[in-house]
Amino acid sequence: MLKSGLDTPVAIVDLDILERNITDMACSTRNIGVHLRPHIKTHKVPEIANKQLEAGAIGITCAKLGEAEVMADTVGVRDIFIANMIVGNDKIRRLLNLAERLRISVGMDSLEVGGPISEAAQKRGLRIRVLIKVDLGLERTGVPYGEPTVDLAKKINKMPGLELAGIYTHEGQVYSAKRSEHLYRLAREAGQKMVQTAKMIRKAGMELDIVSVGATPSARITCRIPGVTETRPGTYVFNDVAQVKLGIAREEDCALTVLATVISVPSRDRAIIDAGTKCLSSDKAAAFGTYGLVKGMPHATLVRAYEEHGVLNIDPSESKIKVGDKLEIIPNHVCPVSNLFDELVGVRNDVVTVTWKVAARGKVR
Amino acid sequence: MLKSGLDTPVAIVDLDILERNITDMACSTRNIGVHLRPHIKTHKVPEIANKQLEAGAIGITCAKLGEAEVMADTVGVRDIFIANMIVGNDKIRRLLNLAERLRISVGMDSLEVGGPISEAAQKRGLRIRVLIKVDLGLERTGVPYGEPTVDLAKKINKMPGLELAGIYTHEGQVYSAKRSEHLYRLAREAGQKMVQTAKMIRKAGMELDIVSVGATPSARITCRIPGVTETRPGTYVFNDVAQVKLGIAREEDCALTVLATVISVPSRDRAIIDAGTKCLSSDKAAAFGTYGLVKGMPHATLVRAYEEHGVLNIDPSESKIKVGDKLEIIPNHVCPVSNLFDELVGVRNDVVTVTWKVAARGKVR
Repeated sequence: MLKSGLDTPVAIVDLDILERNITDMACSTRNIGVHLRPHIKTHKVPEIANKQLEAGAIGITCAKLGEAEVMADTVGVRDIFIANMIVGNDKIRRLLNLAERLRISVGMDSLEVGGPISEAAQKRGLRIRVLIKVDLGLERTGVPYGEPTVDLAKKINKMPGLELAGIYTHEGQVYSAKRSEHLYRLAREAGQKMVQTAKMIRKAGMELDIVSVGATPSARITCRIPGVTETRPGTYVFNDVAQVKLGIAREEDCALTVLATVISVPSRDRAIIDAGTKCLSSDKAAAFGTYGLVKGMPHATLVRAYEEHGVLNIDPSESKIKVGDKLEIIPNHVCPVSNLFDELVGVRNDVVTVTWKVAARGKVR
Repeated sequence: MLKSGLDTPVAIVDLDILERNITDMACSTRNIGVHLRPHIKTHKVPEIANKQLEAGAIGITCAKLGEAEVMADTVGVRDIFIANMIVGNDKIRRLLNLAERLRISVGMDSLEVGGPISEAAQKRGLRIRVLIKVDLGLERTGVPYGEPTVDLAKKINKMPGLELAGIYTHEGQVYSAKRSEHLYRLAREAGQKMVQTAKMIRKAGMELDIVSVGATPSARITCRIPGVTETRPGTYVFNDVAQVKLGIAREEDCALTVLATVISVPSRDRAIIDAGTKCLSSDKAAAFGTYGLVKGMPHATLVRAYEEHGVLNIDPSESKIKVGDKLEIIPNHVCPVSNLFDELVGVRNDVVTVTWKVAARGKVR
């Protein structure tokens, strides 16, 4: 079937672009000598995780245990880092169950998180690999870099059932960059602070294997700081408007689009499509002023979106849009989009080739 | 199990509040003498649709054929209005399949939409009940009220395979109201314009049974205009911060909350929860300045949200928040939230009573 024959709205993935994005990142990181551990929250599709592993990723990153369980159960991923704080007995039990089956590591930023995991792991005769979450300015989770991280490392290093394996950050502050020099500086600083903190931990007499960073815009910059050992980008598999705006990708590097149909053309300058925020999400809509980019149609702007409707502003002198036309929207932020669909449809040269279940969709726990 | 024992994040529904919201709206509309046809896009749960029907709704409204199919297949809803434009052969075939099984009606705002449905219905020996979509200023789909609607009605009235049953609008412009008098005026105007348009259609010699309006904030106002026959509110089952801000509901009228766990307290004025935009969506975040309301905790503000993290700003003088604490978030806009979860958990007096599958979740086609 041709892409144009698909019923809409539907999330489609251009396989050539996807594979190019995957191999490009794998090559870049291999050339620098840094491990790649992509975050699968962007796609939540086991088959895409597999492509990343086949291209050279050493394992994957997940935000939730439920994502990790799906990836382990379906395509048998053997090395997973849960880049999050695991809190509560139910989740600790599931973490230890995973640790019995595969190589697992987990984030930690306090003794309140660490204590119960240490205790439970000890009871089951397990040692859980821990990466301390370092905050470089995003002010989300994490301990500040430098001394506070060293202090926590000392304590975690002594706790039974835990193994201090490394430190990690998400340098999300790079998304605030206004110019490429600014992005470059923020990314380099992130790598430098992580390496500096790792040196302090080692100087205090502890072993530390992993210095891990992660964010698509900074992936190729942060890695070049000697001492960074691992990177965990997610969005690079698909790219999106946010990456285009940062100068990290171009429209033709965006692999996932939402194919939509024009269902109404109420006036010369307005057309309505059958995809709204339940397909595209509202992410970054306010900051970007639109709900996504209409691919290959610079005269059409997705100015408003309701749950099941998108409103296009059209340049009447350019517009030949009519009811039934199909067009593709590049999402502002692609990660919440795959999470809204049951399936992603893979196309190559506009021919439908494969349908993937978004198997980890909705795995919020 | 107690609510507090649930693993998080989880979407919970207070059944007492839900049932009160459902019966209140049913009573109000019955007292006015207007039919209630709730929009199920808010919950997407067949069992909740059933409660609405048992309370007196004459049928349901859906945005998508997929939602209608689920509601027909699970709890056997027999009267469904698809408040949307059905475009494309696949969808027309599914619409006609539904029409063979149950009482179905559909929106229409152009001959481009009407023509193919007319043709296909005629071929299958069916007549599809049509409501013309009227635009009162929202500028989404629809023809302008008054003469343009009458003109389209004349044409549709002559088309084989179609039966002109009524006109409908979504008076979403009421969400722009800054004060209650403003809301009241916008709602009344919406009802008046619809009734005026219906009179013009009848004066032109056509029969017209249904004059349908729909939006939770205006539901009890628009209905009082003599001549309005039906209302299609959706959000009222749960309510949300948007309704609270409009003065339509109070915090204690909000039935759906997201129960979340504090996973990190990095500083005295900041706590991080395990629910982000993949649970709460980004809807109205920019306009409201937060990502939801922390129930019963006025000193905590959900100032930022990432995919799997919510960042609370805390008043340190009031805060006793610690890792492991659970709290409830009332969503800004509840409709995209149920669509993010596989299940809603019903609680009564804080005891878990029922788990409902969000059976129409992700039915975007």
